[in-house]
Amino acid sequence: MAGVSVDEAMRRAVELAARGLGTTSPNPVVGCVLLDPGGRVVGEGFHAYAGGPHAEIVALAQAGERARGGTAVVTLEPCDHTGRTGPCSTALVQAGIARVVIAVPDPNRAASGGAATLRAAGIRVDLGVRAAEAEAGNVAWLTSTRRGWPYVIWKYAATLDGRSAAADGTSMWITSEVARMDVHALRGTVDAVLAGVGTVVADDPRLTVRNLRDGSLAIRQPLRVVVDSTGRTPPGARVRDDAAPTWIATAEEVGADPEGRVELAGLLAALHQRGVRAALVEGGPRLAGAFLAAGLVDKIVGYVAPRLLGAGPAALTEAGVTTITEAIDCEVVDVTQVGPDLRITALPRKREG
Amino acid sequence: MAGVSVDEAMRRAVELAARGLGTTSPNPVVGCVLLDPGGRVVGEGFHAYAGGPHAEIVALAQAGERARGGTAVVTLEPCDHTGRTGPCSTALVQAGIARVVIAVPDPNRAASGGAATLRAAGIRVDLGVRAAEAEAGNVAWLTSTRRGWPYVIWKYAATLDGRSAAADGTSMWITSEVARMDVHALRGTVDAVLAGVGTVVADDPRLTVRNLRDGSLAIRQPLRVVVDSTGRTPPGARVRDDAAPTWIATAEEVGADPEGRVELAGLLAALHQRGVRAALVEGGPRLAGAFLAAGLVDKIVGYVAPRLLGAGPAALTEAGVTTITEAIDCEVVDVTQVGPDLRITALPRKREG
Repeated sequence: MAGVSVDEAMRRAVELAARGLGTTSPNPVVGCVLLDPGGRVVGEGFHAYAGGPHAEIVALAQAGERARGGTAVVTLEPCDHTGRTGPCSTALVQAGIARVVIAVPDPNRAASGGAATLRAAGIRVDLGVRAAEAEAGNVAWLTSTRRGWPYVIWKYAATLDGRSAAADGTSMWITSEVARMDVHALRGTVDAVLAGVGTVVADDPRLTVRNLRDGSLAIRQPLRVVVDSTGRTPPGARVRDDAAPTWIATAEEVGADPEGRVELAGLLAALHQRGVRAALVEGGPRLAGAFLAAGLVDKIVGYVAPRLLGAGPAALTEAGVTTITEAIDCEVVDVTQVGPDLRITALPRKREG
Repeated sequence: MAGVSVDEAMRRAVELAARGLGTTSPNPVVGCVLLDPGGRVVGEGFHAYAGGPHAEIVALAQAGERARGGTAVVTLEPCDHTGRTGPCSTALVQAGIARVVIAVPDPNRAASGGAATLRAAGIRVDLGVRAAEAEAGNVAWLTSTRRGWPYVIWKYAATLDGRSAAADGTSMWITSEVARMDVHALRGTVDAVLAGVGTVVADDPRLTVRNLRDGSLAIRQPLRVVVDSTGRTPPGARVRDDAAPTWIATAEEVGADPEGRVELAGLLAALHQRGVRAALVEGGPRLAGAFLAAGLVDKIVGYVAPRLLGAGPAALTEAGVTTITEAIDCEVVDVTQVGPDLRITALPRKREG
């Protein structure tokens, strides 16, 4: 097998890292490819779940002695601390690695310092290879680590004319089964799913990650969070079942805003404390409006069904906008056909003030 | 120059035909490519405007004697009647054409018979080459000719959350200048632009085709139609200026539905009588709802701005849908980024009853 370039190895490492998405929290996703001195791939690994071995350790175990004198290509700066596992920097030194190529430095104070340790051991360290790709693959963890609260995704489903239900309240189903399966896959990548108590009372959603074909639950379930100022989530609500952990977040516990609603910054700080790095706001329109009005949404994923209703509740309300110049501007970064529906991914632009 | 295949020539003919879009009404768009006996292109033409020479005549004039013994490749069955111009069938026979390849037969009773005349003159006639493409390029004319009323396009502009204006009614501008230029190009392809009197009163639109850079008017303007049950279009409304022809369509003139509104089937029949083959419904939400509820919309073109408002009027109301199973299902046939905005093209599915 011919050797591969460091650039190509990093492309592969980013791909490997993505396999951990949804199961590594509160850790980042990381991928590692080991090349021997001739540039041949002798080890591959990714961080699969918190508490499990880091990507470098998996790859080193696979490579054994073949890694000696070779290059480690890794999407994130190797850790330098002993947590649930030993420091990767030490493991790379002990394995006799000659060069380490890193895409993104570790912003986490507790774990950083890996590059310095490696350099002190005489290893050549290069930073920034395919950094944008690696950053994108780890955006939720990097963002939340840098600022101290979770990366927030708002997901909505609506018709072409922006309705989330018909005039009589019926909404099953606005979007296709393929789109709903895609939503479950999206839920599987986050640590918490948030809904307002209004949605819980009205629709009694499960908010679990399921296989829609047979109804079976995914092994790992995100935390279900009901944003419920006054604690009126019904005792028999499905979100209270034992299919997944649930937190009924009340204003009493989290703190209240001037209108007596759950204070969202406090809610996000509490979620971060609980290890939540990525959170998905699923409903309803008022909760989404509150997050958007506060500038707390990092990404928007809209499932738009090619249907028209002409009446019925809107997908979004009370976003703090009264005139056109105050509109919340976004940038569309992806449009994908999902079955008959469109999945539109957009990023809100940073706003003044 | 090497010869081209008949299939390739038809592809070119369809492209040529499209150049006439917006100026040939009430005639179809037609493109023609002439090949000499060796398959070399010796003439090209398209029908540019009603009253002007047909595509075949333009191409024959260009080819002269080189067309003798050759093949005429034409997107629509050559006409067989003397209207404002002589029959193309006769011209092809006189030019000594040996074979005529046609994409789509002419559904227009007055003009059809061209293929039969050609065959009677000993010319080989083939039908159906690239028929779907040619049909798509002429869809408005073919549809309206077959059924006797115009092809109706509903155009809307909205935010991601389906609003056509902010809570205070401001809407300038929801979409980008690039998208608005695209709308003017779309207007330039139709024969009539329709708006409800509510929109005329609220927004006082011009409904003309303009160059948005310098405000200059296009040479050909579609008929402006105000759907105005009781004739309350203000005397000073911009639609009454002399920039384009205007018809204030009242219930008294057109006929009324049980609620006293302008009867839409009658309106469309009257427009067809006036030579309108393609009509663009531009606003507002109630007029669009009435057209959709009646199943009278053939195509939907939505300009969706990546912005959120969370309040304000919806792009569509009163479409006759009260529960989810009655939703007006569509098929998305195109999504194109137009500047920062998305242009979503969808076709309503045919409904029972």
